[in-house]
Amino acid sequence: MRSFERSANEIRPLTFERGFTASPGGSVLVRWGSTTVLCTAMLEEGVPSFLIGGEKGWLTAEYAMLPGSTRTRKARDSGRGKVDGRSTEIQRLVGRALRACIDLRRMPGYTLYVDCDVLDADGGTRTAAINGAVVAVHDALRDALAHGDLTVSPLTCMLSAVSVGRVDGETLVDLDAGEDNRAEVDMNVVTTDRDEYIEVQGTAERGAFDHAQLLRFLDAARLGVHAVRAAQQAALREALA
Amino acid sequence: MRSFERSANEIRPLTFERGFTASPGGSVLVRWGSTTVLCTAMLEEGVPSFLIGGEKGWLTAEYAMLPGSTRTRKARDSGRGKVDGRSTEIQRLVGRALRACIDLRRMPGYTLYVDCDVLDADGGTRTAAINGAVVAVHDALRDALAHGDLTVSPLTCMLSAVSVGRVDGETLVDLDAGEDNRAEVDMNVVTTDRDEYIEVQGTAERGAFDHAQLLRFLDAARLGVHAVRAAQQAALREALA
Amino acid sequence: MRSFERSANEIRPLTFERGFTASPGGSVLVRWGSTTVLCTAMLEEGVPSFLIGGEKGWLTAEYAMLPGSTRTRKARDSGRGKVDGRSTEIQRLVGRALRACIDLRRMPGYTLYVDCDVLDADGGTRTAAINGAVVAVHDALRDALAHGDLTVSPLTCMLSAVSVGRVDGETLVDLDAGEDNRAEVDMNVVTTDRDEYIEVQGTAERGAFDHAQLLRFLDAARLGVHAVRAAQQAALREALA
Amino acid sequence: MRSFERSANEIRPLTFERGFTASPGGSVLVRWGSTTVLCTAMLEEGVPSFLIGGEKGWLTAEYAMLPGSTRTRKARDSGRGKVDGRSTEIQRLVGRALRACIDLRRMPGYTLYVDCDVLDADGGTRTAAINGAVVAVHDALRDALAHGDLTVSPLTCMLSAVSVGRVDGETLVDLDAGEDNRAEVDMNVVTTDRDEYIEVQGTAERGAFDHAQLLRFLDAARLGVHAVRAAQQAALREALA
Amino acid sequence: MRSFERSANEIRPLTFERGFTASPGGSVLVRWGSTTVLCTAMLEEGVPSFLIGGEKGWLTAEYAMLPGSTRTRKARDSGRGKVDGRSTEIQRLVGRALRACIDLRRMPGYTLYVDCDVLDADGGTRTAAINGAVVAVHDALRDALAHGDLTVSPLTCMLSAVSVGRVDGETLVDLDAGEDNRAEVDMNVVTTDRDEYIEVQGTAERGAFDHAQLLRFLDAARLGVHAVRAAQQAALREALA
Amino acid sequence: MRSFERSANEIRPLTFERGFTASPGGSVLVRWGSTTVLCTAMLEEGVPSFLIGGEKGWLTAEYAMLPGSTRTRKARDSGRGKVDGRSTEIQRLVGRALRACIDLRRMPGYTLYVDCDVLDADGGTRTAAINGAVVAVHDALRDALAHGDLTVSPLTCMLSAVSVGRVDGETLVDLDAGEDNRAEVDMNVVTTDRDEYIEVQGTAERGAFDHAQLLRFLDAARLGVHAVRAAQQAALREALA
Repeated sequence: MRSFERSANEIRPLTFERGFTASPGGSVLVRWGSTTVLCTAMLEEGVPSFLIGGEKGWLTAEYAMLPGSTRTRKARDSGRGKVDGRSTEIQRLVGRALRACIDLRRMPGYTLYVDCDVLDADGGTRTAAINGAVVAVHDALRDALAHGDLTVSPLTCMLSAVSVGRVDGETLVDLDAGEDNRAEVDMNVVTTDRDEYIEVQGTAERGAFDHAQLLRFLDAARLGVHAVRAAQQAALREALA
Repeated sequence: MRSFERSANEIRPLTFERGFTASPGGSVLVRWGSTTVLCTAMLEEGVPSFLIGGEKGWLTAEYAMLPGSTRTRKARDSGRGKVDGRSTEIQRLVGRALRACIDLRRMPGYTLYVDCDVLDADGGTRTAAINGAVVAVHDALRDALAHGDLTVSPLTCMLSAVSVGRVDGETLVDLDAGEDNRAEVDMNVVTTDRDEYIEVQGTAERGAFDHAQLLRFLDAARLGVHAVRAAQQAALREALA
Repeated sequence: MRSFERSANEIRPLTFERGFTASPGGSVLVRWGSTTVLCTAMLEEGVPSFLIGGEKGWLTAEYAMLPGSTRTRKARDSGRGKVDGRSTEIQRLVGRALRACIDLRRMPGYTLYVDCDVLDADGGTRTAAINGAVVAVHDALRDALAHGDLTVSPLTCMLSAVSVGRVDGETLVDLDAGEDNRAEVDMNVVTTDRDEYIEVQGTAERGAFDHAQLLRFLDAARLGVHAVRAAQQAALREALA
Repeated sequence: MRSFERSANEIRPLTFERGFTASPGGSVLVRWGSTTVLCTAMLEEGVPSFLIGGEKGWLTAEYAMLPGSTRTRKARDSGRGKVDGRSTEIQRLVGRALRACIDLRRMPGYTLYVDCDVLDADGGTRTAAINGAVVAVHDALRDALAHGDLTVSPLTCMLSAVSVGRVDGETLVDLDAGEDNRAEVDMNVVTTDRDEYIEVQGTAERGAFDHAQLLRFLDAARLGVHAVRAAQQAALREALA
Repeated sequence: MRSFERSANEIRPLTFERGFTASPGGSVLVRWGSTTVLCTAMLEEGVPSFLIGGEKGWLTAEYAMLPGSTRTRKARDSGRGKVDGRSTEIQRLVGRALRACIDLRRMPGYTLYVDCDVLDADGGTRTAAINGAVVAVHDALRDALAHGDLTVSPLTCMLSAVSVGRVDGETLVDLDAGEDNRAEVDMNVVTTDRDEYIEVQGTAERGAFDHAQLLRFLDAARLGVHAVRAAQQAALREALA
Repeated sequence: MRSFERSANEIRPLTFERGFTASPGGSVLVRWGSTTVLCTAMLEEGVPSFLIGGEKGWLTAEYAMLPGSTRTRKARDSGRGKVDGRSTEIQRLVGRALRACIDLRRMPGYTLYVDCDVLDADGGTRTAAINGAVVAVHDALRDALAHGDLTVSPLTCMLSAVSVGRVDGETLVDLDAGEDNRAEVDMNVVTTDRDEYIEVQGTAERGAFDHAQLLRFLDAARLGVHAVRAAQQAALREALA
């Protein structure tokens, strides 16, 4: 039996607590089963040097795990002087995905900083980060529109992300850490709310996978992202203090 | 009027949410007014090289602010390759204070890792970190005793910390960020639950302070740490899932 | 017209110069159109700490671009003290893909170091790196078998990689730098010589892509990897001095 | 018996050799018992970015120990790429204390760089650094006034610092390294020449301390800073080549 | 017998493959026996801050060894965050030598970046780097003149470099790695094509050397640099695609 | 006229204050004109990993300039995370030269740490460092013999170093900073007390130099090192407290 008594096609309980902290324009605590991620979004004046004087703004994302997020404590990057390779890979994915739903020409001179900090890690942190980040971005932009910093929202679509994988020969949606460690193949899929792909990343962890398996993954992922989208929409319908 | 409609001698509303995340032995979310700090404590096998083969364990603390904890985003240390000076100063204070209440000979071969991550910063983060860390340490040690890793608790006292300061000529307890920025002098006081001092740090920010003012600070701090202690005791009386 | 007067489904001229340098067990200069990558593979005694005492060896890959590999000079990572994010992402991909074709239990106590250094970059450097690295690994392992360091070859399959993308609405195989900069979507596909997938990474650079487009990419990629495989096999048939 | 045959309330022999090196505006070699610190002060044009265009100057301090300053060689920070935590804590204390005696509005556009390098460490290096630094600052500012860089001296008070501690149950002034290692509590006190406090830092190293002990420390510190002040004044009365 | 069946005064076979890669203005693959170095030169707009607004350009050189250039893999500097000491020493030598043959006033506002990357190391890499770099600089400047970026060539002389050493009591020219490891003394000599010295660096590795030995080294070096110069001139006579 | 009213062949006043600090076995303050360098030598147990289990000890040297050693403050390496190129070059020279006079087989299991810290820089700091370091090494080894750590002194010769240069067409010995900045060529020469060369480094700063000039430099250097040696011998004749 899978955690949270769910079937192969079901995701874990997923909630988004908007306005979790007061300082950022957007602040969302994502709880996805036992995985907990704080996503914040802050719009600040200024752009990277390669955009100075141009007509576009910028969006950048960072991802990190707190030392206490894993059963065995994870040493901080600040002690090593660099971001670890896995985090680098994830924050590039998060930033790329979010930029696909932002029209940077509608926020010239501004940078949107997205930070995804994992407070507790039980699998699916990169998809949790994307799912929460897009809600935090939504709130930060709403805040900027309310304050008159922007006049048109740069947000052009919503994103939903889910992992799928083959574990013990079975195709599962939304792997927890225990399943992820045993997975033969895993795939992360990011889609828009128009059911188009933004990112598809399939990786053979043990053995390879054939075309039929790839198609099964994509089918399963479709169910997963629909469930994620429903949870996001429920959170967005609530009033934000 | 001060924030939260309180008098000069009162502290802000202070709560401790124990078991906030599942991975660490101790995990406490401190909310002190708008200041929010996640304190985790993890007991792990192994000691630093200078203690190998000896009869003592070790306790080390780290303190960091998340990028979204301030109104203007704070860049991560991992991008700069080193911990900033203020954080270094604070984490040394937190570690020193906690070690005063731990008998390291009762945990030979173990290191207790304490992490204080500021999720939202509105003043008093270092005292919030100490107040929450000692509760997280309490829970992590209780967990280790329950699992038989330790046989006697190394915790020998409880700690409570508060800031006091002179703002516009008046002595205030528990400064928020707005008061802290205007303070002429500020002082952080850490005491045991036997009302003895563990650390007294008074600093002139604008102008100096005389002996009479120092005595007034210590009087005010006594009231503050008593209120902190009451909140800690209330949290510890609750059952932890 | 595409560079090297080729059609949408054709790859650029691709050669592998084995034994390009003398020091490593495997040393392959890949020339793919104007893209030039030196791939070396060295088998050394010793494994990372998490494998010490175990029954497995390890394979690790690094990827870097020489300063002169781009029209505008690329500053070295050593001056910045860390590997840039894109290189981190690529070297993780290269290492992961190669490990899928290596049985690490056949090389206990050994680490295979793979280095991919880009001498000239005109698009497709990550796929060139994978294609050359697997040949260098082949040669390094052959060398180790000849010297009696290993008794059975750990190599269990061969890898071929190619990029595909949608440029100006058309699906193209093996994008050069000019095409890559204009691509709306691009995808990197790594397969074994049994035509199974090891890695599929599709990314929307401008706009999203639907399921039908994804299937067209996979079809085009199949043609591309077959052409790559033919070039690899031709190189492996030649005698190595 | 204490080193240098002194009583509990006496400080070690303390001298200030002004003009020890020729390059900086202020250069003072402090010899306090066996502790030797070189303090230099240099006034340079330019201010940190947060003060550009404003009406204030800046003062910054750095503290470091030479490798040969301790019986067991201390590795350089440059090899580790960061300042160690203790040095960070001390240089923040030195900078903060000096800024309390400088009117930064009298030196707009200038930064005063203070460097305290410990040549030999036998306890009390942070108080030695403060005591010597203020003399070096005095000389650097006198030099700047003589050259017409400034028209009014920004120096508004003088500073004297001393450590006190409880060792074997006794309250001692100006601890040497042997005493410091055995201290149950130690406190550093920085005062102005008007006998007001700039900084009071009391730390329990073993066990806690009560209010009565704190008052005894402050009494003892008063004697200590008076002796320090006398040595500073004697040095300042001498002609500087 | 020495490698490549040569006498004490002869250098190893030396070739320069110009235009080895397409991106840089100058790109030269030097093969000197088994030592292989890629030297690139790129002229870019911009100068270091200490030359901004002045009438001079700048030339800077970097030297690095690829991980696969040695029999035992050499870890990358990027993993350590700094250039190793030996490489630092060599790149300072290369830059200094090249600047002696460049009139920086003829390239105001430009920086010439020279990169020497060792692909295979069998002794003499620093002299190979200098010999190839000056050819790459020649080609990059020719390219800049052809494009009209410069109007007069800044190149004022050509450089040739060779190592000499005393091995087993005998004076040898152009040491390979095996000889270098056994050398009692070695010396690197850089001369102009007018037979004047640019750099003479003699180092006792085992024991010292007297004046007569120094004169023998200089005699031997003269023969060596003449042979190097002949190889450079042959390469420069060939047409560059 | 040259500084200190000396002729072209004369060195500046040179003194060695032995036992300047108490912690290291050897501690020498070198004052050479206005150049001031503190050289310390410490013998410690342990050797680098490549010598563990072998029959040899090791000697390593570090060189650094204090921030206040130059008229314009020099930023610390610890802030940048790496040693600057010039310091790297110098510390490699100092270490190499000292190792030429040490028989490492007479100190198995020990490392001799030499630190040269420039307190004031007015030219000739690298030669001052070598001249003082060899005296500090002498004292540290004498101390180790007295304590019975070693039984035979590893010191096999003494070293003297001096700079020569061509300034305004004239050959000068021991250049100060003003002369060094104007030098067309400069050369550093390190010799043993048997008048043999350990290191000869001649560098053209402006224009090249011919064979006759090289011979004039070597003649002038001989006079310089004799004067240095006399000053070293005078210092070594004095009793060390």
